[in-house]
Amino acid sequence: MPIAIVLLSGGLDSSTVLAIAKEKGFDVVALTFDYGQKHKREIESAKKITRRMGVKRHVVVPMSFGEPPNSSLTSDSQEIPVRRNRSEIAGGIPSTYVPARNIVFLSMASSMAESMGASSVFIAANAVDFSGYPDCTPEFIESFQNMLDVGTKAGKDGRRIRVEAPLLKMSKADIVREAVRLKVPLELTWSCYRGGSKACGKCDSCVLRLEGFKAAGVKDPVEYEVDK
Amino acid sequence: MPIAIVLLSGGLDSSTVLAIAKEKGFDVVALTFDYGQKHKREIESAKKITRRMGVKRHVVVPMSFGEPPNSSLTSDSQEIPVRRNRSEIAGGIPSTYVPARNIVFLSMASSMAESMGASSVFIAANAVDFSGYPDCTPEFIESFQNMLDVGTKAGKDGRRIRVEAPLLKMSKADIVREAVRLKVPLELTWSCYRGGSKACGKCDSCVLRLEGFKAAGVKDPVEYEVDK
Repeated sequence: MPIAIVLLSGGLDSSTVLAIAKEKGFDVVALTFDYGQKHKREIESAKKITRRMGVKRHVVVPMSFGEPPNSSLTSDSQEIPVRRNRSEIAGGIPSTYVPARNIVFLSMASSMAESMGASSVFIAANAVDFSGYPDCTPEFIESFQNMLDVGTKAGKDGRRIRVEAPLLKMSKADIVREAVRLKVPLELTWSCYRGGSKACGKCDSCVLRLEGFKAAGVKDPVEYEVDK
Repeated sequence: MPIAIVLLSGGLDSSTVLAIAKEKGFDVVALTFDYGQKHKREIESAKKITRRMGVKRHVVVPMSFGEPPNSSLTSDSQEIPVRRNRSEIAGGIPSTYVPARNIVFLSMASSMAESMGASSVFIAANAVDFSGYPDCTPEFIESFQNMLDVGTKAGKDGRRIRVEAPLLKMSKADIVREAVRLKVPLELTWSCYRGGSKACGKCDSCVLRLEGFKAAGVKDPVEYEVDK
């Protein structure tokens, strides 16, 4: 069985990617980063999800970006934006962007893939219903793949590590439907950027998730502070 | 003064790059990784070098690659190769290659650069007198730059972070001459892959360094276990 490293945050999208990688027949190694995110509880979700989904290897890496990242997702002095609906999310890259985060995460996953002889690295990047992050676009995934092919021993030896982003062009509703089909334990996933006891329902991540469930006609099993 | 992040291992090459960045007028932030290298003493060299060279900010980041990297530079079960001369280094990528190391290091430096508003990231990659690492070539630097332009907020906003590799096409002798010109404290640098009390003189890094000093007609002030 070929090995795949799956970047798993513990949210809806990456949990669905985990299920997709398993369905494709990969021996999955899940990789989660503890990087100072406010919603640290997503790490506990990731652990529960890997156990429930029978993933034998789950690596949780404590990580420092050197200096604290300039992001409302990690900095106590910056507020996570509140939105009423999806239209309020449009317009530029939001403050929850963590500088070069997916670049760092994919790099670490690629290093691990090369050390372990894995053939693929999976990332839940999505370019349809997303917050406008530059490190979630098809152009980014393609350029990262090129860089990896050129800059690694695996690339030179013809044992290319493939960067796979199966959700890239799916809507959030499509992702919800795919998660349901693959029996992802949705009640264990955590998407909210705030690390409260219930999901806030007002951050970009909650707003997109709720609208995705609504459009898919599926009830979100996670508890929210607002009416769903 | 524009800010530059300089990847500093504590060796000859990266110390010279630090001096080049300072000469170019950058406000330098040095970045060193503690990643389980056998020659951990290079980190102490890096600290002494930044103090001597008047670098005010030196960030040392403890880093785990998740799983232990498959490399003789970090693994106790793998021996660092012994060479008699440079011709023995040729022929493929050596076991001291750390999977995707420069990709991870440049990614972290780029994240920090974006958070701090730095305009450049400096790396001591060298494609002339080197060990054949794929992450030290002009093609790699170029593809990393492309990926960074596409995948970061800085790239999208037109505040592009430049990846600078001033040693890329220099011979080791050229680097030694440049180090002398810039008054790099050569006696503080540590290049040896083995972390002994004296440099071994037999690893790829020692062999290339010694031949570089010889070709430049400069005495290497570092102590070796072998005749220089």
